[in-house]
Formats: sequence, structure tokens, C-alpha cells
Amino acid sequence: MTHTQLIDNIGELTTNDPSLGAGIGGRISGAAVVIEDNRIAWVGPASQAPAADERFDAAGRALLPGWVDSHTHLVFAGDRTAEFEARMAGESYAAGGINVTVAATRAASDEALAANLDRLVTEARHGGTTTLETKTGYGLTVADEVRSAQIACQIVDAVTFLGAHVVPAEADPVDYLALVTGPMLDAVAPYVTAVDVFCEAGAFDRAASARVLEAAGARGLATRVHGNQLGHGPGVQLAVEHGALSVDHVGFLDDADVAALADSWRGGGHGTVATVLPACDLSTRMPLAPARQLLDAGVTVAIASNGNPGTSYTSSMAFCVATAVLQMRLTIQEAVHAATRGGAIALGMHEDGWLDPRGIAQPRVGVIAEGARADLHLLDAPAATHLAYRPGMPLTAAVWRAGTRIV
Amino acid sequence: MTHTQLIDNIGELTTNDPSLGAGIGGRISGAAVVIEDNRIAWVGPASQAPAADERFDAAGRALLPGWVDSHTHLVFAGDRTAEFEARMAGESYAAGGINVTVAATRAASDEALAANLDRLVTEARHGGTTTLETKTGYGLTVADEVRSAQIACQIVDAVTFLGAHVVPAEADPVDYLALVTGPMLDAVAPYVTAVDVFCEAGAFDRAASARVLEAAGARGLATRVHGNQLGHGPGVQLAVEHGALSVDHVGFLDDADVAALADSWRGGGHGTVATVLPACDLSTRMPLAPARQLLDAGVTVAIASNGNPGTSYTSSMAFCVATAVLQMRLTIQEAVHAATRGGAIALGMHEDGWLDPRGIAQPRVGVIAEGARADLHLLDAPAATHLAYRPGMPLTAAVWRAGTRIV
Ligand SMILES: [Zn+2]
Ligand SMILES: [Zn+2]
Repeated sequence: MTHTQLIDNIGELTTNDPSLGAGIGGRISGAAVVIEDNRIAWVGPASQAPAADERFDAAGRALLPGWVDSHTHLVFAGDRTAEFEARMAGESYAAGGINVTVAATRAASDEALAANLDRLVTEARHGGTTTLETKTGYGLTVADEVRSAQIACQIVDAVTFLGAHVVPAEADPVDYLALVTGPMLDAVAPYVTAVDVFCEAGAFDRAASARVLEAAGARGLATRVHGNQLGHGPGVQLAVEHGALSVDHVGFLDDADVAALADSWRGGGHGTVATVLPACDLSTRMPLAPARQLLDAGVTVAIASNGNPGTSYTSSMAFCVATAVLQMRLTIQEAVHAATRGGAIALGMHEDGWLDPRGIAQPRVGVIAEGARADLHLLDAPAATHLAYRPGMPLTAAVWRAGTRIV
Repeated sequence: MTHTQLIDNIGELTTNDPSLGAGIGGRISGAAVVIEDNRIAWVGPASQAPAADERFDAAGRALLPGWVDSHTHLVFAGDRTAEFEARMAGESYAAGGINVTVAATRAASDEALAANLDRLVTEARHGGTTTLETKTGYGLTVADEVRSAQIACQIVDAVTFLGAHVVPAEADPVDYLALVTGPMLDAVAPYVTAVDVFCEAGAFDRAASARVLEAAGARGLATRVHGNQLGHGPGVQLAVEHGALSVDHVGFLDDADVAALADSWRGGGHGTVATVLPACDLSTRMPLAPARQLLDAGVTVAIASNGNPGTSYTSSMAFCVATAVLQMRLTIQEAVHAATRGGAIALGMHEDGWLDPRGIAQPRVGVIAEGARADLHLLDAPAATHLAYRPGMPLTAAVWRAGTRIV
């Protein structure tokens, strides 16, 4: 017995499917959408819409796919407000700040970690986020990484193992690398779909990062890289060489980096997504990543929040999209695409059959097209453009996730 | 018969009164506030708070003065989404875009203008704005300017006459200047407290702007200037020479401009406030105004939204404050001060006895101190810092205006 919902009187529909409408956003006006259970069953002109059990009148407002936030670090405890204030007063960001959160996270109960994650995911959903990845990386012992992954996989859509975040203060770097590429990885593997490494001065160098990616590959796990955040480094090249799903931050790129990313997309296969994190760039007073240049070179770009207590304590994808348009010179369609389908591609959720953390195959996300998961974001505005035209305004009017209205 | 309300368990109180607490924000922890009718009756340590008729538990959250948005243009009709999209696609902003709104505003009914203004003011209040100035300037005939001012003075806290916005398309520049400094000004004067002029290439030059300011002064009206927005011009010098309350935009300043503004504050009198409009700067892809340099020189700075349909279609003071901290290098205390007490100074509402649009003398705004109007903004955060630490998050938890809880 299925349940169907019709959403009509949509002012502007962003489908992200160029076969359905104009531009990279596949925009349609005068459209309607039918949801059947947890999936999109039909998209087309409102005049041809089939009947449904329920009707929702969009009242001329804009409908787009729910945000796919493909990069967060939300399993944590503790507070880093003072570090933020110090940075705003002119002190520079050091990766060592992570250790403050590691200590607080280790000291927290499972219940406290789960409650904090749940609170932050709820906040994100209220801002229109319907798919959310999060990373471990504030445990940095086998037991603390495993429990971080276990807690996360009950709440979010995708969990990434980031044991290689920093070498914890008490550990020997050589021993820790052996642990993170061996027993720790084996213990965490059942709860995660990908492995990430912070390839940066002060964290893991090229050789150590390569060992992390190789260990992940040997176990059939997807990979991603934190690269080129604080300065130019080998992260981007390494990510492309290892076929990583994404390389994230990408603030400091040379022409060879851009070319390597672009090359990864030639021939039609899955290349390495360049994930830009505008709220993090601003919160650390780093240059905004060159997303315009990356798109122009043919690279698939994702926009994510990098939600974490140190360098980007926000889940506002609307803020990231506004920044991408106003300051990084993306069009609104490019920015919305990057924050929805771009994130889905970075997570490997752009095709049917990805396994959610319960191991259940799911329909694709990041598009509004027949068969996709019914993840929808209705704006208090007639067009998606208003996300940049009205920066800072709370524009989320309604959110459906897997067919269920949650906001 | 008075009514009193106690707000206690305040995590961090920003008073903007350095005699009450630390820094320019006059910050206190462990404080309580007592409201009596529409005024603040008492501020001090929670342990010494007097009894009150009602109690509100702030639950450790931050309390600050409501935003004072001292620069908006909200009496308008029509839509300029297409112009925004064109600008984001690389076209430059021309002041002529104003004429699109002028045509739509003239064509709108009084009821439509009032309803649109009311909607926008309600949005602003939901974001924590408790004092709001707005300007005429989309009518540009005697009848349309008068009705704009009449509608505005029933809804907002301060109305500014901006007949000198642009010369309307149908008018002769010499004739229009005579009108705007003569019969139009006389007709509008009963409904406004100040007169503004857009001193910029394409709008009014130095000589014409000076005539507008002189005509205002001759009638005992306060003055302000839109200056140095699109390039370097005479606006700042003119504003200081005429003792204007504020000069707004100030994106392009030379050393002489900064020195003139700083000089206006020497000796302790009311100088000319430099009002920065960060959302407008970003929405027009102009350089952010040099607010850090202005503060360092000793200039009083205000932050305002410049809410208008062309160049800054937002009322989010939180967005402006986050931008001021993250990108303009203000401290959070400086930014919050500029967006509250700074705006009050720019409007002449920082002292008791300013006349509201009904002609009734009002207590001062922009501070939380005994005798001030009870305009309070409670955040969903333990500290005001979170306005910049959590950009884009909707942090407004509660708002009181003149002692009445409105959000
Ligand atoms: Zn990260
Ligand atoms: Zn203005």
C-alpha cells in the first residue's frame, strides 16, 4: 500500500537534471512533483500531474533538492569559543586546536556525544539539509574512534573514518600511523563507508597520507583527502592518484592541481570532486577556494559546511551558497548544484543503490527526478536566486526527507 | 500601575555601557535585567536583583540590545531579482536601476506599499531588529514622497526624506533640484526627522548635494549623506562640513576622508557617524568598507542592512555583524556595538527624548542600562561571539521591543 503526495503550484523547480529543464540546475517553472513513499514518482508540468493521496500547495515558492552536506565533523564534545575569539583577534589557526576537542570528546559519555550530534543534525535539517556526512577523528584511540563511528552511523547518512586527523598528543607518529592503517581501521571499518586523511603540514605528510589511502583501498573503502587547506601541498595530487571520491578545502591550488582534477573527470568516469568549504575559509580568514576556476576547468565541485567546533561551527548551507555566489562568483544554479548534487557525487550517493549506515540500498539523492529519494527543500521565496539575493534571511519554509515532512 | 519583568540567568549580557561592564560592549556575566513597562529599570548582578511581577529564565544564553538598523529603503513595490541575477553574471551596478523601483512604487496602492513595508519590518523584527529607520526615495513626486513618508512613519521608528535619490527619468535636473529643496521638502517635512542625499556620479554632484543639505538645515532637519559608495567622491567631506548625523556606504575613502570623520568626533560633541553596509558591499561585489581603519582612527561606526530591493535585499543584521567580524576585522564587541548603539548614535536616538514618528518623546535605544527603552535580543547561544562563530545560523531566540515580547 503506497502513499502519494502531490506538490504543485511550484514557482521555480530546481531538478538538477538537465534533461528535465534549463541549465545545470534543470530548472522548470509551472511544475509539480509527486512523491510515492520515500521516492520521487513523477516530475512534470502541473497541468499533467497525476492524482495523489495528499496535496501540498507550494504557493508559487521555489522548490529544490535538500542540501547534501558532504563534509562535517559533528561527533564531538567541548567548546572552542575562546579559540575562535583568539583567531579573530589575530592569532593564526594551528591544527593543534583539534587536540582540545579530542580531550573533551574522549571524556564525554556515549549519551552526551549522541545528544550533541543529534542536536546539530536537527539544526542542519531545519536549515534544509537532508543528507549529511560526518567524520570520526576526535577519538584517536581504537575504542574512541569505534564508538564515534557507531554513534554517527545511527544518526547520519554517511560516516567517514578520520583516524588520520592528527597524531594525538600522547602517541608516537610512527606507531600511530601503523595503528590507524591497521587495527584501528579494521575495528572501525564495519561502521563507515570511506576513509579520510588530513594531508597538511602539522598533520600527515605525503608518504603517511598515501599509506592511509592505500590501507583504505586494500579494504575496499572509498577515500577522501583534506588537502591544500593551510597552504599549497600534495593533497590534491595524492587524492587524484588514489582515485579519491573527493579532496576537500582546496584553498591553495597551482595550475597542475587544477589540471589533475580536471583530468580525473575526462572519459566520463567518476573523478575526484573538489569540495569547497566557504564558511570554513571565512571562519579561518583564509582565501576563498578558487571554485570558479575549478568549474571553468571542468571539475565537479561540491559545497559543504565543514561543520565542526574549531574552524567552521555552522551547518548553514544557505550561508555557504550565498558566499559562493556573492564572493566566489558561481552562478546561483552552479552553487545550488554544488551544494546538492555535487555533494551527492562526492559521497557516491548520486546513483541508486548506495548503502545507508544500516546497510540498506537507497535511491540516489541530490536531484528531483523520478526514482530519486524524496528529499525536498521549499524556500520562502519565488526563486533559488533569493538564497544569494537575501543573504542571512531564514528562507527554509519546509523540508521533506525520504518523503516525510520534517520541517 | 507599572508592570515589571525580571530576566535572569543571563549567560553574557552586552550592555554597551562601559560603566557597567568590560570593554566597549560593557559585558557582564551573571547579570539580570529588570524591565518596568517600556524601559529598563535595573541592571546588575543576578544575586541582587529586585523582585518583579514576571520572571524570564534566559537559561545561560546571551542577551544584547536589539539591533538598531539605521539605514533601509523599505517603502517600495516591484521586483529586481532579474537585475540581481544580471549583476551576479558580471554586469555592473548603475544607479539607474532605482528607476525600476520608482515606476513600480508609483503604480502601487497605499495599501500595497504599507503591506509590503509591514512584512519587511516584521521579518526584520524576527531577526532581532527593534529600531528601524527607513527612507522615502522611490516616489520622487511630491505626492508619492509624501505618501511614502506618511506610510513609513506609522510603521518604523525614524523616517528620512530621500527625494534626492536620483533625478527621476521624466524630470529636468535643475527643476528637480528646486523641487526637492523647496516644495517637496516642505510637504514631506512633517513626517520625517532627517534628509538624505545620494551624492554620487549618476545621482547628485557636490554642489547639488550641498543645496539639499542646506535646505534641510534651514528647516531644522537633521541630515545624512549616501557617499563614496561606487567610487571616491565628495560625499564624506560634504557630510562632515554640514554636520550630518551620518555618512553611509563609505567604501572608497582617502586619508583626508578618514581624518575629517575622526576630527568631527574630537571635543566630545556629536560627530558624523560612518555607517558601513556590509551586505550591500557584498551584494554589489564592491570592496568592504574600511571599518577597521575608521574605528582605529577614532570614528564612531554604525553597521546597517541598507535593506532595499536593488543592492541589499536583506534585513539580517546578524549577517552584517558576522561579515564585519570575519571579513572586516572588527571584534565581536565592536561589531555588535556598531549594529546597536552605533546605529542609535547615527539616528540621534542614543539620548533620551528623541521624538518618535508620532511626536512622542522616547527613551534612548542601543544600550541595556537604566532608563533606556527595553529593546532586548536573546540569542540561542551562550555568547554574542556566536553571531560570527556560527555564521548563517538562525540565533534569535527572543526579542522584546519597548518592554513587549514580540518574538
Ligand atoms: Zn574537515
Ligand atoms: Zn541606501
